[in-house]
Order: sequence, then structure tokens, then C-alpha cells
Amino acid sequence: MVGSCGSCDSCADNLENYCPKMILSYSTIYSDGTVTYGGYSDHMVCDEHFVVRVPDNLPLDGAAPLLCAGITVYSPLRHYGLDQPGMHVGVVGLGGLGHVAVKFAKAMGVKVTVISTSSNKKKEAIEHLGADSFVVSRDQDQMQAAMATMDGIIDTVSAQHPLLPLLGLLKSQGKLILVGAPEKPLELPTFPLLIGRKIVGGSAIGGMKETQEMIEFAAKHDITADIEVIPMEYVNTAMERLAKADVRYRFVIDIGNTLKPTN
Amino acid sequence: MVGSCGSCDSCADNLENYCPKMILSYSTIYSDGTVTYGGYSDHMVCDEHFVVRVPDNLPLDGAAPLLCAGITVYSPLRHYGLDQPGMHVGVVGLGGLGHVAVKFAKAMGVKVTVISTSSNKKKEAIEHLGADSFVVSRDQDQMQAAMATMDGIIDTVSAQHPLLPLLGLLKSQGKLILVGAPEKPLELPTFPLLIGRKIVGGSAIGGMKETQEMIEFAAKHDITADIEVIPMEYVNTAMERLAKADVRYRFVIDIGNTLKPTN
Repeated sequence: MVGSCGSCDSCADNLENYCPKMILSYSTIYSDGTVTYGGYSDHMVCDEHFVVRVPDNLPLDGAAPLLCAGITVYSPLRHYGLDQPGMHVGVVGLGGLGHVAVKFAKAMGVKVTVISTSSNKKKEAIEHLGADSFVVSRDQDQMQAAMATMDGIIDTVSAQHPLLPLLGLLKSQGKLILVGAPEKPLELPTFPLLIGRKIVGGSAIGGMKETQEMIEFAAKHDITADIEVIPMEYVNTAMERLAKADVRYRFVIDIGNTLKPTN
Repeated sequence: MVGSCGSCDSCADNLENYCPKMILSYSTIYSDGTVTYGGYSDHMVCDEHFVVRVPDNLPLDGAAPLLCAGITVYSPLRHYGLDQPGMHVGVVGLGGLGHVAVKFAKAMGVKVTVISTSSNKKKEAIEHLGADSFVVSRDQDQMQAAMATMDGIIDTVSAQHPLLPLLGLLKSQGKLILVGAPEKPLELPTFPLLIGRKIVGGSAIGGMKETQEMIEFAAKHDITADIEVIPMEYVNTAMERLAKADVRYRFVIDIGNTLKPTN
């Protein structure tokens, strides 16, 4: 985001991301009436309130996706109190959001279980990303064994998917937090919410203060996104690969070295 | 409830109602293997931990439904922080649960709006129960005017109903709390959860400590359920009237005066 009203309750609470007049970095109308074009350019003018300082020890390329994927998972871990050492948090979906969710939660001292539809990513999740365990959601025995063991779940999936099995993984008073946005409504079984006082919540990026805090936490714990750096001329191929989820886990465009000026 | 395990995390936290081994007052198996028969009798033996002391100034008949309907709405108002003076809370459905939700919320100093499918109960809600305002959920203009004004909603409806309009009534970070249990899953639109960091939560009765606290709060604020006292021989007619929602708002059976001893 690059702007907000500055005067509502959300803005006063450092939650510019929930301001009803929040301005997205691209494809929305800025306060001067022009269209926002985002960061796909060699320079950009922005209100300093919406600029984040990247600590010197973080590489700019690996840090770039943290300003979206990173804060999107960091903020709910903090806000919903899923950041206490010894807690057990599930991460559903191991993509751009999920892989940094594992890294942040581990750095907070939380036990992390990755929940995925197949075992394809098990080795990656445990050996490379440092997750403590892995549950295949289509495997009834594995799901049964993990029932009622989690304090919270960060659900990064933006496709339709059933919530009932995830609610079953939560302990009493557990929290299922959605950060992906399926187009159609999901089916919400109410009984597990009532008998376990569980909640389903949401979260979207974070406020500027918390985004700065997140990037400093990342610097302290050597957290970056796993990326593939590409030149500008590769962008259409990258879009095709994105549609097939063929990237681990984010493309980063090297604008400085590859953008050709249009004079 | 008349029993729980006494040793799980929920029991240790005075949340016997969320104990996985919680024993309901009727129609479940007690720890001695017998069936629990509830309070439809002239005497009953119960573990003292599950007995609530009714303060002297509360009439027993008007207080009786508070031990179910009362605690069911009191607990979420407290737990989800919807009990702060000046807050604005919606109550969906004006029945056994809803009418005491209005009374408790008002006694906490909260501004209360009743949300109902028709205007039939408007006079009752405002003049008799003391609600501050009334919104007809089928009236688009009224719903539009109330958009983003509520800190929380206690939803007592146990029939299928859409959540999207209710989520729209909530402010950013508002809480929609379900205390009714529709049989089938509800449709959960995820976008309002994400862009407003809203939650959908549940709640079921309360722990024994909180139930005692609730009844003392009721005594202090002269809160009772609105009831119709009936003799035991009227019970079948009462069941028929219940099925038609033809009661304001709870039947209470006068066991002491009307139960005829068997044999």
C-alpha cells in the first residue's frame, strides 16, 4: 500500500492496511487522481510514511517478497497470539506465503506442522524450511493423529477447500486464520466453533509500523523469501509459470539491471 | 452440565464446558454408567462443583433459564471483549437467547441493536427489553445505514442464514459470535474477514465459575428471563407451542407444585 486516510480509527492504531481508504501500490487511484503503478519501474515517488527501511544485512531481492508475503503471515501470528514459544501452529499450503510462515513461526519458537494435500513437499518442508512435522490432509490416519493438537493454523490456500478437517486439528479455543482469499464462500461448520470456542479469522498484510518491525525481525533471524531472480524480459514466461505454480517460491524482477528505459 | 474430567486444560482453566468429557445434564452417560435425567424431577443429586447458588433476590423461576440461555450469551460478551461501556453490539434473533443477550449487554453499558428479519418485534425490543435500536435485516436501506457500526454481534439464530450481511454490519476488527447451531454448514465469505480482520467465533454455555459470576451479575442488575410458568401436565402442549416459537421467551415448569409422584 502507498496511502491511507490518516485520520480514521485504523490509521490512528497503526493499521493503515484496514483503513477504508487504503490505497494499493498498483492499479488503484492515488489521492491526486492518478493511477498507481507499483514498483515495476527504476524509480518511484512515495509518501515517506509508506516507505520501509530494509536493514543493511538483508539482501534486497530476498527481502522484497517479505513486504507482501512476509507481513501477511507475520501479522496474524502476532495479532492472534500464535507467537508464543512452545505453541503448535499449522501452516496450510506451502507456497509463497506458506514457506515464509514456516520461517517466521520457527523463529518465534513455535512448533510448526505443514499441512498439504500430498507428501510431495514433505522433504522440502522439514529439511529445507525447518518445519517440525508434516501432515498430508488427504490421509485420514495422519489427520486423525494430529486432531486437537494445534493452537492455531495459518491457512494460505486461495482455492476452495474444506474447513472442517482443519477445525478438527485445533485444540479447544484454537484459531484458524485465513490469509488466502477463495473467490466463493467456504463452507463453515458451526458445531466445532461452538463446542470448542474456536474462531475463524482473517488478516491482510499489516500496518506500516508492524511491517517495519517484521523486516527487522527478519534481519535479526536471517529470514528471506526463497526466490528466483529474473530479468524484465522474462516476465511473460514467469506469468505462465506462476499460473502453474512452477516457482520456489517467488519471482523477483531485477529491475535495476534489466529494465530498458523507454526514453 | 453435571460433570467433566477435572484434569484437562479446559477444566484447569474453569472451562469445564469445553472439557472433551463434559457430561450434559440430561440424556448422556454419567461417570457411574447411568443415564442423566436432568432437572425434570422433584429432587436431583449432583456433584457440588456443578451446583450454582442463586442469590436470594432472584426469583427461582425467572432465574432458571439464565443457567442455559443467560450464560450462553453472557460468556461470549465477556470472552470476546464485547462488554465495554460505549461499545455497540448487535443481537441477531429475539428469542430465548436473544432477549437475555439484550438485557445483559445493556447492563454492561453496551449500546444494543436488535437485528431481526421483520419489524414485528421492534416495539418489544426497544420499549420492553431496552434495546437502543432495531434493524430489519431484509430492509436493504436499514442494513446499509447500519454498515460498519458494530463492534460485535451475538448471533442466536439456529436456522440457515447468510453471514455476509452480518459481517458488513461489523466495524473493522469486529467479531461475529455464533451461539446458535445450524445443522448444515453456513456460507462463509472470506473477503470481509481478510480486509477487515474480522472473526467468526463460537461459544457454548460457560464454565461453573463464570456461571456463578453471571447469576450474581444478574441479581445485581435485576436480570431474569421473561418466562411463562406452566404446570407439568401442560408439557406436551408447551412442546407444540415451542415448535411454533409461540412463547415469550421460555417455558418454566413448576415441578414443585405440579409433579405427581409415580407409584
